Amino acid sequence: MHTPIAPEALLKQLNWRYAVKKFDPSRRVSAELWSVLEQALILSPSSYGLQPYRFVVITDQGVKDRLPPISWNQPQPRDCSHFVVFASRVGENAGDVDAYVKRIAAVRDVPEASLDGYKKMMLGTVNNMPEEELNYWAKAQAYIAMGFLLAAAAAVGVDACPMEGIIAAEYDKLLGLTERGYTAAAAVAVGYRAADDSNSTLKKVRFDPAVGVIRV
Amino acid sequence: MHTPIAPEALLKQLNWRYAVKKFDPSRRVSAELWSVLEQALILSPSSYGLQPYRFVVITDQGVKDRLPPISWNQPQPRDCSHFVVFASRVGENAGDVDAYVKRIAAVRDVPEASLDGYKKMMLGTVNNMPEEELNYWAKAQAYIAMGFLLAAAAAVGVDACPMEGIIAAEYDKLLGLTERGYTAAAAVAVGYRAADDSNSTLKKVRFDPAVGVIRV
Repeated sequence: MHTPIAPEALLKQLNWRYAVKKFDPSRRVSAELWSVLEQALILSPSSYGLQPYRFVVITDQGVKDRLPPISWNQPQPRDCSHFVVFASRVGENAGDVDAYVKRIAAVRDVPEASLDGYKKMMLGTVNNMPEEELNYWAKAQAYIAMGFLLAAAAAVGVDACPMEGIIAAEYDKLLGLTERGYTAAAAVAVGYRAADDSNSTLKKVRFDPAVGVIRV
Repeated sequence: MHTPIAPEALLKQLNWRYAVKKFDPSRRVSAELWSVLEQALILSPSSYGLQPYRFVVITDQGVKDRLPPISWNQPQPRDCSHFVVFASRVGENAGDVDAYVKRIAAVRDVPEASLDGYKKMMLGTVNNMPEEELNYWAKAQAYIAMGFLLAAAAAVGVDACPMEGIIAAEYDKLLGLTERGYTAAAAVAVGYRAADDSNSTLKKVRFDPAVGVIRV
């Protein structure tokens, strides 16, 4: 029997969510709860399912301490529990498509040849997109995962802060992303809000739906 | 008292989700449930809260019938219940920042002048990004909202299909997006899976977490 989550319970959580400016550095997300959020992250959909990204999960305090100076001095990377860097693929290529096709064949227990049509379609996309566009495409996929993680964390009552204010080149160097063929697209700090985070009491601001939603 | 959603209930829903290829054209998402999903959409976070996008919600069957030919003949836009086009801003500018600052001042009942520092920061970003990068930035924000909607729909037991295979120029023309200063970035078909959608029984394929997640 399929029993989804009550819509009003979800809305309550999404309204509870806000971009945390000050985390409580003494609180950590439990291993059990983190595992659920990590699974949510992995379950994010992406174009063709290609997942042109890696998730870097930073919990080492020594490393976290080095992040504010390369994040416009924002304290969240240091004070949160789990800091997730969304590393998007640079130069997605035929090799990536091939690895993915092999993975589909293995998981679904089907011959690789049965995926030839799908493979050709993916290669058509990957091989024909100009390099810059391709890298933006990979980044956009990572942003879907970002949205997924933010919604999932809010749902289960874990705080977060999405962060674009990170210096990608410095993150790439520190985390060894460049040599892996990835680059830091954005990040999400995950943890628990400090009791005195002044942002937590601010009213949410969104455009009037009459402006932001066009009904056809 | 804060009672978030049970983590295992959320995971169950995220595992239930898949990209629907064949919708049941006879089933419609109720107005009540849609209202929750639309609120989830609006609650999506964005850079500075600037929301450089509009959500086009298409329910008119006559319009939906015109979408497959400009969507690589995919049937989902026609057969789903609510078709959402994520229209991202083209050329976000000082006027957008100004409108947003006015909105913050109104919602939070604070003088506009108290937001001068924040405004300056946003203008610094918007005015200094090269046009192309700015448009990709706006598109990336829309992708966060896409992730948010997909997670929210799954949570409440509504099916969906994220779609990048839409011809933006044709959508822009049909929906009058160009003259509004927006462009179709991507779309999500929302509704209910057909009983015989063969995709619904396929095993999910994701990279091994040992590969996809880098722990630091």
